[in-house]
Amino acid sequence: MEVANEETKTMPQPITMRGGDGPLSYAQNSSLQKGVVDATKGMMIHAIANKLDMEKLCSETFRIADFGCSIGPNTFFSLQNIIHAVEQTNHGNSATSPEFQLFFNDHSSNDFNTLFKSLPPSWPYFVAGVPGSFYGRLFPKSSIHIGHSSNALQWLSKVPEQVVDCNSSAYNSGSIYCTGIETEVGKAFASQFENDMESFLNARAEELVNGGLIVIVMGGIPDGISLSQTAIGKFYHLFGSCLLDLTDKGLIKEEKVKSFNLPLYFPSAKQLKALIERNGRFSIESFDEITEQVKGVAALPSAQNYISHVRAGFEGLIKEHFGNEMVDEFFAYYAKKHIETGFVFGENAAENTLIFIILKRI
Amino acid sequence: MEVANEETKTMPQPITMRGGDGPLSYAQNSSLQKGVVDATKGMMIHAIANKLDMEKLCSETFRIADFGCSIGPNTFFSLQNIIHAVEQTNHGNSATSPEFQLFFNDHSSNDFNTLFKSLPPSWPYFVAGVPGSFYGRLFPKSSIHIGHSSNALQWLSKVPEQVVDCNSSAYNSGSIYCTGIETEVGKAFASQFENDMESFLNARAEELVNGGLIVIVMGGIPDGISLSQTAIGKFYHLFGSCLLDLTDKGLIKEEKVKSFNLPLYFPSAKQLKALIERNGRFSIESFDEITEQVKGVAALPSAQNYISHVRAGFEGLIKEHFGNEMVDEFFAYYAKKHIETGFVFGENAAENTLIFIILKRI
Repeated sequence: MEVANEETKTMPQPITMRGGDGPLSYAQNSSLQKGVVDATKGMMIHAIANKLDMEKLCSETFRIADFGCSIGPNTFFSLQNIIHAVEQTNHGNSATSPEFQLFFNDHSSNDFNTLFKSLPPSWPYFVAGVPGSFYGRLFPKSSIHIGHSSNALQWLSKVPEQVVDCNSSAYNSGSIYCTGIETEVGKAFASQFENDMESFLNARAEELVNGGLIVIVMGGIPDGISLSQTAIGKFYHLFGSCLLDLTDKGLIKEEKVKSFNLPLYFPSAKQLKALIERNGRFSIESFDEITEQVKGVAALPSAQNYISHVRAGFEGLIKEHFGNEMVDEFFAYYAKKHIETGFVFGENAAENTLIFIILKRI
Repeated sequence: MEVANEETKTMPQPITMRGGDGPLSYAQNSSLQKGVVDATKGMMIHAIANKLDMEKLCSETFRIADFGCSIGPNTFFSLQNIIHAVEQTNHGNSATSPEFQLFFNDHSSNDFNTLFKSLPPSWPYFVAGVPGSFYGRLFPKSSIHIGHSSNALQWLSKVPEQVVDCNSSAYNSGSIYCTGIETEVGKAFASQFENDMESFLNARAEELVNGGLIVIVMGGIPDGISLSQTAIGKFYHLFGSCLLDLTDKGLIKEEKVKSFNLPLYFPSAKQLKALIERNGRFSIESFDEITEQVKGVAALPSAQNYISHVRAGFEGLIKEHFGNEMVDEFFAYYAKKHIETGFVFGENAAENTLIFIILKRI
């Protein structure tokens, strides 16, 4: 049995969102992700209500797990939506209304203290936090009825070694993210994503009860488009250029930038579907690629707000690789360049997509 | 259903041990409690092996919960001991070896981040943290096979109102802890303990599977002896005298000391047994009162070490009531007085006892 609390031995330090509830925290800077929750709420409730076979799953306890929960409040909204859907499905059957037990999973470096303190008051559910990587096993066999993962599976378990190895043909020279599709770099990232996704699906297949559902919401890119052509890619380009600028200014060592890449991958819907089918342990009950909504979701009120989101999401990653000392100066420089270059997310870029999937354990 | 994450609404701010893993933390200052784990290890393994009916409990997943786990490492030792006992009982039946899922419970103000980061590496068990008061429900019905609580049930859910009410006949004038037995103060503390223990037993009765066990280890006092005559009472007296001294010196307001009492109660074995029998939802499988071992356990190597333990255990309580500002000065004063008065734990005092109980859900 591979258990996820071994992560510290076998994996590089995992990245989690900025903790606490201060002005720079993820808790205060996750409205973009909240948009995703809202955009998919109706779809999710409808799909669960249609696909969940409550008679088959009948159980005194109904267990729901959020994989990659971060520190709230979005995880609370998502799980509440799922519970509504389950209760609707179970409507008229109040004699057998189950007790809900909710599991919040993220890396052990996640700020669970803040998560627990911000639980909705008087929530009538049993809750638990589960530390560990969702690329390994986290729960006993056949113990989860619905799994959920939103905005999390784009985070790879690690950066593929080749892309930061100067001697490799897949060395990602001068860039910090997955550029290209059929390039060596693109293939290295894709291969890492495929391995990780396979691990995720295999672990969940063990943990879900037969007939249990898993809801996946994750960012994607249109088929045949490179990440660098998309809104997200253009942001990564700006972000990476700040690291290069500060190398020129002597704040960061060149080797450190050369060995840095973002452990992120956005698949095409086609690629993701093929992966799930090849894995074969789940039936695809619902598969949607959303573009229009993403545009609305991504329309942030101000550059300053966007900048705060960026820091909440990436500070841990930057600190882990470059050390504590340069963090404030780096994000100050990034904010300045963001504003001075008039960066607008999504401008002159191909749209990113949002992939919404419901799988059933077969 | 009363769920424990409502605690912030219905209870005073709960007290938890000092977090982190620095020199003043509970993690670094819990060797006294580790002594209790060691002293009861053999008894626990023997009793579980004798009392656990594995055939009746047969399950793919074996769930164990520690109630009042604090931040480690003692909780890891205790649960590991329980797992050894279960595995011994199940010996020769490796085909049906269960998967273990361990739940660590404490108040939501507990430092779960430190707990999760200090999990033993490569532990082959599934783990989860469960925030909330163990005087309310924390788990779904019939979902736990063995519950455990060590050095936790002496913490009351709150200080009885009367003992800090100047107008009450049970006002605990000039003292910060439960003095006396048949006094009004003693009765008020005893009544609070009885209510809390009843809540604990009722909640666990719902959560444990039929035939499931609960292991309770807690401090007690010999029948007919007042806490003030015991080693622990004499320490509380010293501790409280420091608050009074600092009131005289003007560092603390008199009203603040008058409204402060330790939410702690140590029952006699007789009283605790009667409570469990009156509750009636568990059979008493094992009930021991240990005195000699406690003496050994309490033999701390140095006054300085003892002082560190005191701060790790009581800093949260003092901070919550008196505010942040006086904490360092208070503990410095306490350390000075401890050393100057030549305080030795257990000297000229009646022995405290350790009560070790195994209950079975009937």
